[in-house]
Amino acid sequence: MPTIAVIGAGQCNARAVALAEEVGRRLAQAGVTVVCGGLSGVMEAACRGAKSAGGLTIGILPGTSRGDANRWVDIAIPTGLGEARNIIVVRTAQAVIAVGGEFGTLSEIAFALKFGIPVIGLNTWQLARAGKIQSSVHEAKNSGEAVNCALKAVPLAGKADRIDA
Amino acid sequence: MPTIAVIGAGQCNARAVALAEEVGRRLAQAGVTVVCGGLSGVMEAACRGAKSAGGLTIGILPGTSRGDANRWVDIAIPTGLGEARNIIVVRTAQAVIAVGGEFGTLSEIAFALKFGIPVIGLNTWQLARAGKIQSSVHEAKNSGEAVNCALKAVPLAGKADRIDA
Amino acid sequence: MPTIAVIGAGQCNARAVALAEEVGRRLAQAGVTVVCGGLSGVMEAACRGAKSAGGLTIGILPGTSRGDANRWVDIAIPTGLGEARNIIVVRTAQAVIAVGGEFGTLSEIAFALKFGIPVIGLNTWQLARAGKIQSSVHEAKNSGEAVNCALKAVPLAGKADRIDA
Amino acid sequence: MPTIAVIGAGQCNARAVALAEEVGRRLAQAGVTVVCGGLSGVMEAACRGAKSAGGLTIGILPGTSRGDANRWVDIAIPTGLGEARNIIVVRTAQAVIAVGGEFGTLSEIAFALKFGIPVIGLNTWQLARAGKIQSSVHEAKNSGEAVNCALKAVPLAGKADRIDA
Repeated sequence: MPTIAVIGAGQCNARAVALAEEVGRRLAQAGVTVVCGGLSGVMEAACRGAKSAGGLTIGILPGTSRGDANRWVDIAIPTGLGEARNIIVVRTAQAVIAVGGEFGTLSEIAFALKFGIPVIGLNTWQLARAGKIQSSVHEAKNSGEAVNCALKAVPLAGKADRIDA
Repeated sequence: MPTIAVIGAGQCNARAVALAEEVGRRLAQAGVTVVCGGLSGVMEAACRGAKSAGGLTIGILPGTSRGDANRWVDIAIPTGLGEARNIIVVRTAQAVIAVGGEFGTLSEIAFALKFGIPVIGLNTWQLARAGKIQSSVHEAKNSGEAVNCALKAVPLAGKADRIDA
Repeated sequence: MPTIAVIGAGQCNARAVALAEEVGRRLAQAGVTVVCGGLSGVMEAACRGAKSAGGLTIGILPGTSRGDANRWVDIAIPTGLGEARNIIVVRTAQAVIAVGGEFGTLSEIAFALKFGIPVIGLNTWQLARAGKIQSSVHEAKNSGEAVNCALKAVPLAGKADRIDA
Repeated sequence: MPTIAVIGAGQCNARAVALAEEVGRRLAQAGVTVVCGGLSGVMEAACRGAKSAGGLTIGILPGTSRGDANRWVDIAIPTGLGEARNIIVVRTAQAVIAVGGEFGTLSEIAFALKFGIPVIGLNTWQLARAGKIQSSVHEAKNSGEAVNCALKAVPLAGKADRIDA
């Protein structure tokens, strides 16, 4: 089953929560498993959205207890690796959607780009060199565009219906 | 959902394969998710057994590609951490069943015991100090006893029916 | 002893090599241990520079063999963790100097900023939000300014002489 | 420089402390760098012994702060990986000397044997299968024999003088 990561901060504003929930719901509707860092904020919202559409959710946790996972995580993976678990979130996904996000999210964007995994951004980091913003992160206007863009990047998700933005 | 790890070597004899497959099947019948290292040998047999009973399987992979997982893995987690992924296999489980196994399996037994996670063994390592074998690993006689013993150690699996050995 | 990381790509142009070598030499002259990813390019140049001034160098390697380290590494730490070793490079340092760099370097910048470790950049990534470049990475004009800026961020290095840019 | 790990528990009895200190001192006298987990107990004693003979010590820490290292650690590597750092302690060494030890030490013994790194034991774990104790861990009678045995396993340490038991 295709798997897409939703990444973002554990503490975030209402707009990011709403966006992440929409992204999670749309991914589940398209038959995609959602993987995330398993905690609160954007992670929890994405899982809640996915579960609202009957999807499957994976939480790759930094701590040692499965109890750290938010209540919408189906598969909790307590790594005990701290922030090093970010790299596993990314490797588990075939595309990454970043919603807002702080420096932890930036580390995940960096790893995804390093591994050639497409990154779609919603109000997230932009990368620049010598004052010029680069196009490494595909910026989407809304959750529908973000999900469609991510689905195009996931070969196995070809069977999934394209969804309206 | 309760999750139990089945650990053992990637290359093993027919007896270990048969045991691991029985263990996987019995765990799935009891409503338990099977987590393992995701590769061949005991890991593959446990997953195949679990899937034969309609269970859910998780493979925590050492490499960077989900394609490394055996075909019976539902949820592939490519960690890219090499043998350090052993610790994640253990942390994801509430009990561990070791079937045969080499030194990698021994590392998983060690971590489980360190974390207070019960370890049930089938033809696996024994630990000794000063020439005296210790009882840290609970030795089971067959797959049924191993699974029953593991289920007793998993509080959330209390609802699952005890199965006949 | 204060420890500062020099990060950058394993393959880089002559200008980055020259900059990294100067940075390594200046850090060693200030009595600072250099930590890096232990491989070629910027990492090797920084180590070579540090050794030219009698410094101590640490290489946190992604692979499993100490033989992967460049010849200027004194202390080789073969982690076997792949790119997850980036987080250890950063945690080992009290400040980070980025010279050029690709996405792996970006992941290290992200972790450093997440952990509150100062990042000084020489021709490296800039971070932006909504089209506006942020000041998270302190941009230095040359190797002397980069090293002085990093030294100011390292309390224990206070005894070390400030060096001329 | 050849590097040998001294592994053992963070809390241990006076006999283990004395043994570990002797081992550390003898390793340093033979020109060997001591690597360990960087904390207290056997780890601290080994480092103290090594420093008493002017040796170099490396501490691979589970936590995120270099301040967690015992005071005899020269090179502190705060991994933030928890017990997963055990695998790095082992990979950094060309031989391993286990002094007593609990389950964490057992995980390090297991990884060392998996990687083909010789393990010498002083009052440590023994491994058994089917009731028969195996010879995977070379059991030494005292610190001198342990160090000599480890030195023989380290090709680059050939130049170092053999020391009296």
